[in-house]
Amino acid sequence: MNDDLSTAGSYVTAGAEFTRDTNYIDDRITAFRTESGHDAEGRLLWPVESDRYRLIVARGCPWANRAVISRRLLGLEKTISLGIAGPVHDKRSWSFDLDPDGLDPVLRIPRLQDAFLARFPDYPRGITVPAIVEVASGQVVTNDYPQITIDFALEWTAFHREGAPQLYPEHLRAEIDEVNSVVFSDVNNGVYRCGFAGSQKSYERAYRTLFDRLDWLTERLSTRRYLVGDTITEADIRLFTTLVRFDAVYHGHFKTNRQKLTEMPVLWAYARDLFQTPGFGDTIDFEQIKQHYYIVHTDLNPTQIVPVGPDATGWLEPSGRDALGGRPFGDGTPPPPPPAAERVPDLV
Amino acid sequence: MNDDLSTAGSYVTAGAEFTRDTNYIDDRITAFRTESGHDAEGRLLWPVESDRYRLIVARGCPWANRAVISRRLLGLEKTISLGIAGPVHDKRSWSFDLDPDGLDPVLRIPRLQDAFLARFPDYPRGITVPAIVEVASGQVVTNDYPQITIDFALEWTAFHREGAPQLYPEHLRAEIDEVNSVVFSDVNNGVYRCGFAGSQKSYERAYRTLFDRLDWLTERLSTRRYLVGDTITEADIRLFTTLVRFDAVYHGHFKTNRQKLTEMPVLWAYARDLFQTPGFGDTIDFEQIKQHYYIVHTDLNPTQIVPVGPDATGWLEPSGRDALGGRPFGDGTPPPPPPAAERVPDLV
Repeated sequence: MNDDLSTAGSYVTAGAEFTRDTNYIDDRITAFRTESGHDAEGRLLWPVESDRYRLIVARGCPWANRAVISRRLLGLEKTISLGIAGPVHDKRSWSFDLDPDGLDPVLRIPRLQDAFLARFPDYPRGITVPAIVEVASGQVVTNDYPQITIDFALEWTAFHREGAPQLYPEHLRAEIDEVNSVVFSDVNNGVYRCGFAGSQKSYERAYRTLFDRLDWLTERLSTRRYLVGDTITEADIRLFTTLVRFDAVYHGHFKTNRQKLTEMPVLWAYARDLFQTPGFGDTIDFEQIKQHYYIVHTDLNPTQIVPVGPDATGWLEPSGRDALGGRPFGDGTPPPPPPAAERVPDLV
Repeated sequence: MNDDLSTAGSYVTAGAEFTRDTNYIDDRITAFRTESGHDAEGRLLWPVESDRYRLIVARGCPWANRAVISRRLLGLEKTISLGIAGPVHDKRSWSFDLDPDGLDPVLRIPRLQDAFLARFPDYPRGITVPAIVEVASGQVVTNDYPQITIDFALEWTAFHREGAPQLYPEHLRAEIDEVNSVVFSDVNNGVYRCGFAGSQKSYERAYRTLFDRLDWLTERLSTRRYLVGDTITEADIRLFTTLVRFDAVYHGHFKTNRQKLTEMPVLWAYARDLFQTPGFGDTIDFEQIKQHYYIVHTDLNPTQIVPVGPDATGWLEPSGRDALGGRPFGDGTPPPPPPAAERVPDLV
């Protein structure tokens, strides 16, 4: 999550729109090499290599959730290990509260901040997940989440499982990028623009933009099973991680409350279909999702009380979406269940 | 509303359950007289008399809403005038923001507090609506809301309109009281116990109690159109004023979010049926309801941003409840539309 942790608890600036800091450590981990050691945009390149890196996430965070789903779908679990920070962070950092002794068992650090400072001792920006850390040096390589999933799909192919899907296929790339761009600004970040709005006016503008976009998505998805093409792509992963949090968090906490997801039939069926697809729902921990938002954003929820609802059992009801056709994994196959250490609690 | 305004903005006491102050000015306005001038419980009696009293309410407040509905159903509009305070109050008092010059046009006071202090210069408790004020003296007679509607039904009969319903009929009184008692503690006040809980534990306890009771009400109302007997009674008025605020406020603001009302089919149809009955929906101003809660409770919603949703058009959809039989007004008739000065905005 792209929170500026130096101001944890203060997400709302009175009178202002919410603006996301989009500066990251933008190194890449790639199969291709260049003479300069950098890509065309000047980003430092690290080599793909099994067991060299660790992906740090938090179950609560939608941006990290993308990387967790990609890793599952592509079968990178054995290649890139997973560290899971607790749902709640303090002013300084996400921390490894869920691990014995509060230390990440591989990196042996209590806070993700330690890996950022190992890389840049004066690191000035947000300590965010997802972050990929080089295990040997303990240094963050990248926290540039939009690039992380693209590189998982295109650069780590040598380590993909047999039957891994094409999440960012060449011939659909322009269309995926176009959908991702509007989904990012109006939906993924749009819900934050509602929740962190500093004025009634900026909230209402973000609300209208969000629901206009959800109406557009409803129309698009009413006749096609997936957002782009007839298989699951990067575009579906990015929309899913927001939709799955919609009723649990955004509807109440961020006031995105024209309807619940459960009251938008097309999007609700689309989201359920993905939830029930191996690699999606098996990454979701609703309790940690709710704890994250309701406990961390004290300027929206000073009591830090975490809602008991909503009843989540509906996620398991049949979606009927297979009637629209589509081939979830294209010529590939669904991933096997997650490793035991990465299992999330059952819904009920 | 029974808010202690001396602490406006602070409704939550850390670690504690929410406890409602139930001390009121409990004088009564009655047709019957006694030698002592008091009733059997020692409450001072004032005489029913047309044009002598003014009912002060706020559209936001569910406790005041009861009195507004009773007055409409019984046709007391010409007998007891209505003053409407604005949705938002300050630390001291509800105030007449909606009126020209910010003065109640009959009482000529800016704040309801003035009428409490005219009665008791050192009045120490909450300045609450509904309150009935004697116009000539400018003094509050009573703010004892549960008694106000009972007395409207039983003591003001000489002024009831032709066709007024029996809202508290003798033969159903014990059953109405029993239902009202559990609905008060688990639902009417239960939603506040969720929202103002000072700990996760007390919130969760109130949440379970609330939804257990809503499940009980669902069962009760699945085969009968109204709560007690086959006509509208005081019991329906009291449940309605909470249900109509459920999705607009309580679901998000008070975290009563197992389901929305729209997702509880029996209660949703029951509430819609009442909403569409003259005297109920025509007292509801969703904008003022939302403004009240989201702006006043700054310890729950420090940004004071008021949600745009939920979409309220569903309230006008047919409920199908007439298939259960029942005679809404018994041997009586529906009330005519409200006086022009008391109209609420259309839903869309």
